[in-house]
Amino acid sequence: MKMELIEEGRDVLLYLDGRRTYLVKVRRGREFHTHKGFVKLGELIGKPYGCVIESNLGVRFYALTPLIRDRALKTERRTQVIYPKDMGFILLMADVGPGSRVVEAGTGSGALTLALANAVRPEGRVYSYEIRPEFQRLAINNVRRAGLDAYVEFKLGDITEGIEEKEVDAVILDMATPWLAVPHAHGALRGGGVFLSFSPTIEQVVKTVSALKRHPFVEVETYELILRRFIVEESRTRPETLMIGHTGYITAARKVLG
Amino acid sequence: MKMELIEEGRDVLLYLDGRRTYLVKVRRGREFHTHKGFVKLGELIGKPYGCVIESNLGVRFYALTPLIRDRALKTERRTQVIYPKDMGFILLMADVGPGSRVVEAGTGSGALTLALANAVRPEGRVYSYEIRPEFQRLAINNVRRAGLDAYVEFKLGDITEGIEEKEVDAVILDMATPWLAVPHAHGALRGGGVFLSFSPTIEQVVKTVSALKRHPFVEVETYELILRRFIVEESRTRPETLMIGHTGYITAARKVLG
Amino acid sequence: MKMELIEEGRDVLLYLDGRRTYLVKVRRGREFHTHKGFVKLGELIGKPYGCVIESNLGVRFYALTPLIRDRALKTERRTQVIYPKDMGFILLMADVGPGSRVVEAGTGSGALTLALANAVRPEGRVYSYEIRPEFQRLAINNVRRAGLDAYVEFKLGDITEGIEEKEVDAVILDMATPWLAVPHAHGALRGGGVFLSFSPTIEQVVKTVSALKRHPFVEVETYELILRRFIVEESRTRPETLMIGHTGYITAARKVLG
Amino acid sequence: MKMELIEEGRDVLLYLDGRRTYLVKVRRGREFHTHKGFVKLGELIGKPYGCVIESNLGVRFYALTPLIRDRALKTERRTQVIYPKDMGFILLMADVGPGSRVVEAGTGSGALTLALANAVRPEGRVYSYEIRPEFQRLAINNVRRAGLDAYVEFKLGDITEGIEEKEVDAVILDMATPWLAVPHAHGALRGGGVFLSFSPTIEQVVKTVSALKRHPFVEVETYELILRRFIVEESRTRPETLMIGHTGYITAARKVLG
Repeated sequence: MKMELIEEGRDVLLYLDGRRTYLVKVRRGREFHTHKGFVKLGELIGKPYGCVIESNLGVRFYALTPLIRDRALKTERRTQVIYPKDMGFILLMADVGPGSRVVEAGTGSGALTLALANAVRPEGRVYSYEIRPEFQRLAINNVRRAGLDAYVEFKLGDITEGIEEKEVDAVILDMATPWLAVPHAHGALRGGGVFLSFSPTIEQVVKTVSALKRHPFVEVETYELILRRFIVEESRTRPETLMIGHTGYITAARKVLG
Repeated sequence: MKMELIEEGRDVLLYLDGRRTYLVKVRRGREFHTHKGFVKLGELIGKPYGCVIESNLGVRFYALTPLIRDRALKTERRTQVIYPKDMGFILLMADVGPGSRVVEAGTGSGALTLALANAVRPEGRVYSYEIRPEFQRLAINNVRRAGLDAYVEFKLGDITEGIEEKEVDAVILDMATPWLAVPHAHGALRGGGVFLSFSPTIEQVVKTVSALKRHPFVEVETYELILRRFIVEESRTRPETLMIGHTGYITAARKVLG
Repeated sequence: MKMELIEEGRDVLLYLDGRRTYLVKVRRGREFHTHKGFVKLGELIGKPYGCVIESNLGVRFYALTPLIRDRALKTERRTQVIYPKDMGFILLMADVGPGSRVVEAGTGSGALTLALANAVRPEGRVYSYEIRPEFQRLAINNVRRAGLDAYVEFKLGDITEGIEEKEVDAVILDMATPWLAVPHAHGALRGGGVFLSFSPTIEQVVKTVSALKRHPFVEVETYELILRRFIVEESRTRPETLMIGHTGYITAARKVLG
Repeated sequence: MKMELIEEGRDVLLYLDGRRTYLVKVRRGREFHTHKGFVKLGELIGKPYGCVIESNLGVRFYALTPLIRDRALKTERRTQVIYPKDMGFILLMADVGPGSRVVEAGTGSGALTLALANAVRPEGRVYSYEIRPEFQRLAINNVRRAGLDAYVEFKLGDITEGIEEKEVDAVILDMATPWLAVPHAHGALRGGGVFLSFSPTIEQVVKTVSALKRHPFVEVETYELILRRFIVEESRTRPETLMIGHTGYITAARKVLG
C-alpha cells in the first residue's frame, strides 16, 4: 500500500493539543493563524498525513486526515448535532453499510448525513429531508466539503407529509415530532427495515413508541448511551469531572408485513 | 427499488418476541422447532423479508433480514464478544468505512470481524490476527455464514510479535495485553491512522495509554460507554431494572510521524 | 470507651462471605444452620462484636453488629424496599437528623422507616402512614426487632386524604400516587420543610413536579442516583458486569409561605 | 408543635431561584445586597421560616432554614468538598447516627464534619484530624457557624501516624493516602466498626483495598455514585445536559477480630 500524500485543495485536521484541532483546506500561499503563530499550509503539499508542521513561533502542529467524527464535530452548524457516541450506535442499530438506501430527516447541519453518506458508499444512497432551506444549504456545503455529496439526495420537504422513496433499508429521524413520521416510515421501509429516532426528551420517546406500536413494527427498543471520558495518568486515573450528561434517547424498531 | 425475496440457503432471523429471536438457514423441507411449535422454513422461499410465518401451533413468527448486530449477538462463541454499543462506537472512532484497510486482533469468535468486514466492503480489507486455531476456525465459520469472508484475511499469529501489513487505516485490538502491540501498531499504521483498544480492566488501560504516550501518537483518549435500555409504556416509563454495568474501556489514538 | 459485648437476645449479623450474611437473634442453646454447617449462637454471649465463630464443619463466621443498612436489606418484606444508595440520599436531602419530626408514607415493609427512626433518635418522631394493615404489621415487627419502635408512630390511613401532623420537618413519600399527597404535605410541613418523593416511573415524577409547582414550593428538583460496584483486584480492576440499572427517581422541594 | 420563628443572630438561606441562594446571618439593621436589590435582614426577625421578603426592587426572596446540605455546599472552602450525593451514602454506609463516635480525616473545610456532627448529636462525638492548621481554623468556623462545634473534637495531627481514640464506630477518610491510615484505623475501630474512604482516583482505591485485605477486615466493597439531575417540564422532560461526571470512589469495610 502506497503512502497517501497531502494534495492541494484537500482538507487536513491540524492538531495542536487534545483540545485544539482545526479543519483547514490546504492551499498554496495560504496561512492559517492561531494564537500559537501561523502555519504556511502550502508547505504541507506533497508531505504524508501525520507529518509535523511548525508555526512561525516554532510550535508543532500535526496534519491529520479528517475523520468522519472530526468533520461531524467541525460541521458549520446552526443546530445541535448528533455526537459521535450516538452516531456510531445509530449506524450500527440501523445497519447502515455499503449499499444501504437510507432516508434521513431532518438534515439539520448535515453531521449525521456525512456519516451516513460515508457508510453507504459507493452504491448506496442517503435521501435527506429538511424543511428549512437555510439548513439544507449549510448541510450541502458541509457534505460537499467532505467529498460525499455524490451519495446524498437532498430533499426540501416535510417528512411528516410523506416519503417518496420505497423499499429503503432504514429511516433515521432527528426531528421534533418523529411520531408523525411513523406511518410514512412504515410505508417507505422494506420488510425487516429499521426505523430509528433520536430524541432529547422522554415525552417524544413515549409518543414515538406509542405510534410504532400502532403500526406493524417489532423489536421496538429505546436506549440511552452515556459516554464517560477518562483521565488516564499513572496514579491519577479517574473519569472526567464534568461530562455531557444527556444528548438524547434512541428508539429503534423493525418493520414487518401485516 | 425491487422488493427482495427470501431465497433458499439464505439466513433469516426468526422473531418471536422481544427476547426470542433465532438465526436460521432457509432450506426446503427443513423444520425449525421451538417451544411454540415448529415452522416449515421452506415456506419462506419466495416471500418478502418481514413476512409472517405461523408455527404448527398457530404462533406467529416474523422472518427478518439478519442485521450485523443480530449476527454479532448470535455468533457461535467461545469468547466474550463485543456488544453493539461498543461496536458502533469502535467503528466510528476508528473511522472504518468502505475501502478501509484494518488490522484486528484477536479475532476471537469473529463478532467484531463481521462488523468490520461489512463496513469496509467492497474494496477494503480486514486483516484479523488470532493465536488460537480453534477460535480462528470458529470465526471463519461465523464470517463465512454472513457472506463476508471475501473481505477478511484470517491470520494465525501473535500480533505482539509483529504486524505484516503497512499503511493501514486502523489497528483495532481486543486482547489481554494490548500495550505489547503498540509499537507494532505504530509501524503498521499510516500517518493519521487510528489505534484503538478495547479492554475490560483499568490496569490494561493504564498500561496501554502509557505505551501510547511513549510512541508518536496524539489524541490519546479513553472512553467508557454505558447503555441503558428503557421500558416505555404509558405511565410506566423507566430504565430497565437490571443492566449490563460494564463491558470495557475504549482507548483510541492517532499515529503521527516523528 | 468500653468494648461492647454480645448479649443474649440481641441480633448479630453473621458474615460468611461477600454474598452471604445472616441476621440472627442470639439465644442460649439455639443453633443456626447453613450449608457450611451450624453455629451454636449461645457461644457468642459475652464475646465482643467482630469476633469469629466456627461452624461444626470448621468454617469461620464473623459476628457483626447489624447496621441500619443491613437491617434494611434483611427486612422481612412483601414490597420493594428502598436501597441504601437512595436511603442515604433521601435522609440527607430531607435533612433528617436527631430531633426531626418526619411524616412517611407508605410504610411498606418498614426499611426506610428503620433508617428514619434511627436518624431522629431520641427526641424526634416518625409518623408512618400505611393503608394495608398486613404491611403495617410486618413493618412494626421489623422496626421493633431493631429496637427503634419507640421513635415511630404507625398510622393506618391514607395520606392522600389528609395528614394529621403539623409543622413537621419533612414529608417523605414512597407510594404510587405521590402527587395526590402534595396539598396535604404542604399543609403538614413547617415553613422551609422538605417534601421528598421516591418514584420508579417518569410519569409519576412529571405529575408530582407539576403538583408541586401549583403549590408554594421552591427548589423543586428531581434526581436519579446510579450506583456502580467495583471489582478491585490488582490487574483486574473494573466495574461489576451486572448492575442495578434503576430503582427510582427522587424529587425534593421546600415549602414556602405564600 | 409550635411554629419556629426567625431570631436575631440566626442563619437563614435566602432563596432567589433554583441557582441562587445565599447563606446570611440575620442582624437588625443589616442589609444584604444582590443584583436584584437589597433586603433588610432585620425585617425577618420574628417571622416564620419559609416567609417571603422583598428586596427594595420588589424582587421576592424566601427565607429558608439552612439544611445541612445547604451549609455543606455554602461552606467557606479552600478544598474540594464532598457533595451531598456522596455525603448521604457515606453516612449510611458508615452507619453514623445519634450516639456514634466517629474519627474523620482530613477535616478539610469541614463540610463532611458538619454532616457527621449533626448526625451524631447529642451524645456522639466526631474526632476530626487535620494536618494543616489553616484548614482546621476554616473548618472550626464553618462548624461553629452551624452551631455544631460542641459535637466535634478538632485535632491537629497526622492520622497516618496514629489515632488516639479506641473502640470508635467508624473511621472516615478523605485524604490523599488513605492506605497509610488503614493499620491505625483497624486499631481504633470497635469490632464490626466501619472503615470508609473517599478517593478521587482509582489508584488510591486499589492501594486502599489492598491494605484492607492485609488486615482483618471483611465486606470490603468499592462504589461509585453517579447523580443525574432532571429537567422536568411537561413535554420537555430529560436529564440535564451537563453533569458532574465524577467526584470519587467510596470504599467501605468492616473490622473483625482476628
